[in-house]
Amino acid sequence: MVREAGSVTSRLSPSARTTVVRGDRARTDRGALHDVLASGVICHLGVVVDAVPLVLPTSYGYDLDGPDRDGTLYLHGSVAARSLLEAPEQTVCVTISVVDGLVLARSGFHHSMNYRSAVLIGVPRQVTDHAEREWALETLVDHLVPGRTATLRPHTRKELAATVVLALPLHEASVKVRDGDPIDDPVDVAEPVWAGVLPLRTAADNPVPSADCLAGLPVPSDVQARAQTSMRSASSS
Amino acid sequence: MVREAGSVTSRLSPSARTTVVRGDRARTDRGALHDVLASGVICHLGVVVDAVPLVLPTSYGYDLDGPDRDGTLYLHGSVAARSLLEAPEQTVCVTISVVDGLVLARSGFHHSMNYRSAVLIGVPRQVTDHAEREWALETLVDHLVPGRTATLRPHTRKELAATVVLALPLHEASVKVRDGDPIDDPVDVAEPVWAGVLPLRTAADNPVPSADCLAGLPVPSDVQARAQTSMRSASSS
Repeated sequence: MVREAGSVTSRLSPSARTTVVRGDRARTDRGALHDVLASGVICHLGVVVDAVPLVLPTSYGYDLDGPDRDGTLYLHGSVAARSLLEAPEQTVCVTISVVDGLVLARSGFHHSMNYRSAVLIGVPRQVTDHAEREWALETLVDHLVPGRTATLRPHTRKELAATVVLALPLHEASVKVRDGDPIDDPVDVAEPVWAGVLPLRTAADNPVPSADCLAGLPVPSDVQARAQTSMRSASSS
Repeated sequence: MVREAGSVTSRLSPSARTTVVRGDRARTDRGALHDVLASGVICHLGVVVDAVPLVLPTSYGYDLDGPDRDGTLYLHGSVAARSLLEAPEQTVCVTISVVDGLVLARSGFHHSMNYRSAVLIGVPRQVTDHAEREWALETLVDHLVPGRTATLRPHTRKELAATVVLALPLHEASVKVRDGDPIDDPVDVAEPVWAGVLPLRTAADNPVPSADCLAGLPVPSDVQARAQTSMRSASSS
């Protein structure tokens, strides 16, 4: 059974290599992908270096109306980062995962997690256009704290020269979602063993000013708002 | 400058392919690896399938005294999971990442995250020994909720037959840690822009019994204890 998430915009276009084998956890609407993009904090980039499928955690930004097919995911890195420099020449994978809870069944076998994950596959485009590079870096900062960019000075020429920006289409994607109760074998349900879900979420604590922060500066409203966001799924059923 | 984490047990043995380029964030003691293993909830497995470096989120268990060099990481999956079945024949990468905070600098360029991550590389060993398979599955459940396995019935023959268990040595590893304040350009520090860190952590909410949980069963003490763990770094400086 395919359980559909909340808002449906357009269908995802998974290829054979992104098709989810366990169909009961697959999502096929773009709204599910957009939910994962909005809820994740970091992504994991897969890139082959010396025949090893290296998996590297990194931050991301995105633009649902970006210039690539079905929108654009943006990654950035130092020009010294080998994996990013090699990526434009090969197909990469970017996975974003959000853990929503531990699923505690009556048997070890049926233990699981509630989660939302998106797997994107594509050949990255190195962003060279000046305006798009600036915009991509804005999406990266504003994904951490929406509105933060507007409170900062523009990037300098030197900073832009030191940064590699990659773009990946949001087109080839697969999304998986597990939610709800553990599913135990009927024979186990009658046993006096507690079963249920331990909900998990990414919580923020109070912002901590840096040691060199000018005295008397209030915490900006965008940072305050972000601190109050706890990244729970809005669409979980 | 290499900043050392708390406890030092034995040195990590990174190879050229796991050597951290940005030396100021590298950790070289095994205690830092053990901290990441204990603090992470899921890992991301990198495996090449049809020439694509697929990145798949999955749960893990580990045994610091396991039979592989420097200890053992355990992964499991359905026998139907293609990536796991193909993994024994190739070098894979397993990355565990813990996000500790958003680093909000005075410029977009110096925005960053506080995090702890471990990258493990190796050729997985398919676990065939019966006792080790049972033990591996225990480590997977007990990593979610320490002590949970002791409250559950043993795995059945059928369950064990349906499960692939892989072991990866903890030997070839690199660990990166970033913590502390944003590091701004001196010229920016004088500007009246708030800078600091927004701490993030994986928080648990109250356990929710499943709809079919027998009435009157109390939440077990191991689940209660896990709910009170908020996964903050014990070793962050």
